[in-house]
Amino acid sequence: MQLGLSVSDSDVSSFTPLVVLELADDTKAEAITWLLNRIRGKQQNGGAELLVDQLLFPAQDGQKSNQNVFVVGSTLQRLLKGAEDVGLFKEFQDGTMRGFTYANRESFKDFYGDGEGFLSDAECQYIIKHELDTLRAKNEEHVPGYPKVKLYPGKSVVRRLQSKGVLVQYFPLHNKEDLKRLSFSWYKKIKLSFQPLDDIRHYFGEGLALYFGFLEYFTFALVPMAFIGIPYYLFDWEDYDKYVLFAVFNLVWSTVFLEVWKRCSATLAYGWGTLSHKKAFEEPRAGFHGALGFNPITGREEPVYPSSKYHLRIYLVSVPFVLLCLYLSFYVMMVYFDMENWAISIYNENPNLATGILLFVPSIIYAVVIEIMNLLYRYAAEFLTNWENHRLESSFQNHLVLKVLVFNFVNCFASLFYIAFVMQDMVLLRQSLATLLITSQILNQVMEAFLPYWLQRRRNKKVHKRMRRMMGDKELPLLEQVQLETEMNTYLGTFDDYLEQFLLFGYVSLFSCVYPLAAVLVVLNNITEVYSDAFKMCHVFKRPFSEPAANIGVWQLAFETMSIISVVTNCALIGLSSQVKAYFPESETQMILIVVAIEHVLLAFKFILAFVIPDVPKHIQVKLAKLEFDSLEALKKRVSTNFYVWNKILIYCLLRTAFYFIYFFK
Amino acid sequence: MQLGLSVSDSDVSSFTPLVVLELADDTKAEAITWLLNRIRGKQQNGGAELLVDQLLFPAQDGQKSNQNVFVVGSTLQRLLKGAEDVGLFKEFQDGTMRGFTYANRESFKDFYGDGEGFLSDAECQYIIKHELDTLRAKNEEHVPGYPKVKLYPGKSVVRRLQSKGVLVQYFPLHNKEDLKRLSFSWYKKIKLSFQPLDDIRHYFGEGLALYFGFLEYFTFALVPMAFIGIPYYLFDWEDYDKYVLFAVFNLVWSTVFLEVWKRCSATLAYGWGTLSHKKAFEEPRAGFHGALGFNPITGREEPVYPSSKYHLRIYLVSVPFVLLCLYLSFYVMMVYFDMENWAISIYNENPNLATGILLFVPSIIYAVVIEIMNLLYRYAAEFLTNWENHRLESSFQNHLVLKVLVFNFVNCFASLFYIAFVMQDMVLLRQSLATLLITSQILNQVMEAFLPYWLQRRRNKKVHKRMRRMMGDKELPLLEQVQLETEMNTYLGTFDDYLEQFLLFGYVSLFSCVYPLAAVLVVLNNITEVYSDAFKMCHVFKRPFSEPAANIGVWQLAFETMSIISVVTNCALIGLSSQVKAYFPESETQMILIVVAIEHVLLAFKFILAFVIPDVPKHIQVKLAKLEFDSLEALKKRVSTNFYVWNKILIYCLLRTAFYFIYFFK
Repeated sequence: MQLGLSVSDSDVSSFTPLVVLELADDTKAEAITWLLNRIRGKQQNGGAELLVDQLLFPAQDGQKSNQNVFVVGSTLQRLLKGAEDVGLFKEFQDGTMRGFTYANRESFKDFYGDGEGFLSDAECQYIIKHELDTLRAKNEEHVPGYPKVKLYPGKSVVRRLQSKGVLVQYFPLHNKEDLKRLSFSWYKKIKLSFQPLDDIRHYFGEGLALYFGFLEYFTFALVPMAFIGIPYYLFDWEDYDKYVLFAVFNLVWSTVFLEVWKRCSATLAYGWGTLSHKKAFEEPRAGFHGALGFNPITGREEPVYPSSKYHLRIYLVSVPFVLLCLYLSFYVMMVYFDMENWAISIYNENPNLATGILLFVPSIIYAVVIEIMNLLYRYAAEFLTNWENHRLESSFQNHLVLKVLVFNFVNCFASLFYIAFVMQDMVLLRQSLATLLITSQILNQVMEAFLPYWLQRRRNKKVHKRMRRMMGDKELPLLEQVQLETEMNTYLGTFDDYLEQFLLFGYVSLFSCVYPLAAVLVVLNNITEVYSDAFKMCHVFKRPFSEPAANIGVWQLAFETMSIISVVTNCALIGLSSQVKAYFPESETQMILIVVAIEHVLLAFKFILAFVIPDVPKHIQVKLAKLEFDSLEALKKRVSTNFYVWNKILIYCLLRTAFYFIYFFK
Repeated sequence: MQLGLSVSDSDVSSFTPLVVLELADDTKAEAITWLLNRIRGKQQNGGAELLVDQLLFPAQDGQKSNQNVFVVGSTLQRLLKGAEDVGLFKEFQDGTMRGFTYANRESFKDFYGDGEGFLSDAECQYIIKHELDTLRAKNEEHVPGYPKVKLYPGKSVVRRLQSKGVLVQYFPLHNKEDLKRLSFSWYKKIKLSFQPLDDIRHYFGEGLALYFGFLEYFTFALVPMAFIGIPYYLFDWEDYDKYVLFAVFNLVWSTVFLEVWKRCSATLAYGWGTLSHKKAFEEPRAGFHGALGFNPITGREEPVYPSSKYHLRIYLVSVPFVLLCLYLSFYVMMVYFDMENWAISIYNENPNLATGILLFVPSIIYAVVIEIMNLLYRYAAEFLTNWENHRLESSFQNHLVLKVLVFNFVNCFASLFYIAFVMQDMVLLRQSLATLLITSQILNQVMEAFLPYWLQRRRNKKVHKRMRRMMGDKELPLLEQVQLETEMNTYLGTFDDYLEQFLLFGYVSLFSCVYPLAAVLVVLNNITEVYSDAFKMCHVFKRPFSEPAANIGVWQLAFETMSIISVVTNCALIGLSSQVKAYFPESETQMILIVVAIEHVLLAFKFILAFVIPDVPKHIQVKLAKLEFDSLEALKKRVSTNFYVWNKILIYCLLRTAFYFIYFFK
């Protein structure tokens, strides 16, 4: 039995391990030595100046486990300097948010002594990730020991190792004490209260905190709709004028709450320092390839890929492929409706048990086919987006989100649209809506949290038992923790969580005038969703790296688009209703024209409302402008002594604004 | 006869006079002395360090003319330093645009020797305007000699003098030689060529050059429409499928050309250095009033006005007033249609000369009433916008433009909408369109250029004769020029010119499927418009101060809105046509639904197109990003020596971006 781990255990205790690096089991020793030297090396020599140690796991059942697992930590001073590198914003003495600098550290609020506790765990881990990611090749032509893994000056070492499979994964470690405290205040107490967003942000970073903030906000925003919807259900209100009122309220309300959310998220993001935070020039993503050339902007050597080819791939391959998939999805739906009609006709001819069971067959087949299609499409979308060869991770993500979004939208709602506008059967529509909503909610909760939790629990027990058996009674919290977390599933980002909310929003808003109870169901679902999501983050998945985010990004656009589509669908539904038709007995044409006119007015009203409500609350606008002005004034005072710097500053600032313009109009 | 002017004449020759300052005739001597001292004073003492001299006009016919006319000039060095203050962008040695700095002046392209000719006339005048505008009160409590004209530290002196009527006007002088050269290349040669946009920008500044650029671009963009429209007229094509084709082409084309214009204007603005140029914190406009308080952003003492009151004024007074005016305008239109019906019925009863003349009376009355209403509304809008008390000139302008725009839109197009959709008389619609278009074009050209020119010419001759009489044969070019230009009308900005183009665009696009010849007429009009506008700028109006502009601002929005409305109107017109109705003989409902569906698809297509076409061409994006990156790198290298500056820079830059976000979403 090997017990070489005592070395690492005593070593590790010299610093707090923050990030785990797992290299492939068969990594060549020279590559490991080289990488560790680079990570430990001084910054002036191009190193990251971090602390790193190997974890030696005992062999188990005669089989050696992966020996190439490392933990990375850092000195406090290095972290503070790193905080400056990544452009972290912190609260200043005067209550405003300012970019942190090491030289000015004493002037920041909550900075005491040597700065212990000034940076949160999540921030420290983000800084270490940034430092590892920006570890650049110098003169090495390839990774030592791997002549085929080419490098060139300026290439991120970690990304290259990752894309070649030498670096299996790296992830931040949980902090057990903080986690216990967070989970207590978050989901373990039963009393009604807001989520501890600041604590979530502290532990998981801004991206996730914004998701949970949005989830909470969205749920609260649905409460008025739910309350208004309840009497419709209780009293069986079927008058269309009441439904019309409800629909109009919904449409205006959804615009208002989406606009107000922007203000809320700006307020949150300002307090977290991400509203003003701007990432430095993004590195190409790990999978980006192309002929080696020079970046026209940075002048650095990096793969260059012609943008014409990239656009051709998107417009000539991806767009047609997505359209084809959508068509296929429609086609499958039509087949399903045919099958159902056929089943019903057989049942009507000869109603017995066998044909009664047959009635359910089409739905089951359809559900299974849809799930399979969804899965296949997801793989295809990922493959295609990868093949489109996006230079930036953000652009990759946006294109992937868009592809999956459109397909899911069609899959979820196509049959409802068909029932509503082709079959024009409002009773069936209501039934289908209810069925879809309830089953998808239950399925989601099971698939998302309970199933992974159950699997995870089994695995945990196994690892725990194994470690006990291996090590006897020795205390091995760190080794065990790393072993456990290495085997946990990776949280793939907020994508699926947002997608779920997006589809729920669709159920609520698209056909709101037919099924007012949808809002009630979604509110109930979201209350449990908060708990299951929180639990999932804390106990089911690996801890994710924090991601500075100032808003919910492409999802804001998706929700807004949905609310525009819902204006059209609701107006159409109202136009189709027999009650409204009864108002215009002599002329259907006139009725349609009036409905269309109302729809246009509502759409125009939405756009004007979105235009008129400022996206950032006044007091934060003033704070931002004041800080900008202060900086400008401070710079002006230095101008007399240093014209050169002033020039550069001016150029930089003005161009930054110009860049934003570009980004925005794109 | 006083001949004291020799003093000034010899003085004036010591510097090139660039700007004329006219104070009220009865200005107190101590105020004049104080102002001149401030203008001449050293910068470190809060002066503007400019050169200024009095012009003494001879008395004429026993009546003294205004003696308080001054010319302002500057040394070259002062102008170059001023160029840095206003944040001018100039072409650097490497071909990119960079913020000009005095210290780096040698590194800029076209900078030779002491920098003679580096700055254009318009730039020099803009710099002088900026320096005068930012001349701030120090400890003075009021303007000397005027105890009622209060001042406070930091208040712009010139703006206070202007709002109190002490400063009558200040304007830049024409440069006769440059003007001659410009007008030759611009409108005096007959050969077909593009306008000399760079020369126009050189002489009149970016705002006007962009207008002329847009005018030219717009005209070219209409040429394809015009070409396609001609055969419809020649061959009397009345098939609706052809009209549908034409309309669809128009709708897509108008979206594309508005999007492409953004790219063109970005390219122009980059070359002129205004794309990255950002104005410093704007001063409150001259008319802004409120209780003296502290600006929360700059901390300076200035009038403060509660934004709640400002919003209340807009939403509770201005918006209802505008709506009321629109209603009134509709009402007048209805009365007009009644009158016309009445006149026709009388004529039909008893057709003779008197009743024949009576047929024209309603139109004449209506035209006169509309003109009067327009005039009154314009005054009311200006008054209201003033009363709303906008802090910034830009916000004032936007609100004024919006008010006038909406009213003019309704006035111009309401009767056409009525004919098209209520009366559904396509022949009358076509006639009215043609009449309106042609008469408004002729009227515009006359009112805008020829009439003022004629008046100006008469005045010129009088002044010339008077000056000759006064001075005998002495050469007095400067005195005479100042005298002439002081009395010229002030050019009130590009507002009316853009408005005209906007309305023409409405005639072309709103009913394009009914009257395809509109584009031809507009193209013809615009070809002469270029010449008459150019002539007007050079010879009819005072030279305007140049205004750095990076785009056409609110007009882009206005044109885009018009192109959205035109989708709706064209689809409706097609739906109304008897040919289309003939395709669906059994079901009008189905036809309407199809038309509405097509309309929605077109609208969605427009939005997607606008989203997909990037607003700044790739090569300029790269240039901007490269410069930003270079500046960032240059700053990084300085970081080690000066953490403090780096901190400030970072904050400033990041906040600038955040600020843009705010600005954009507002």
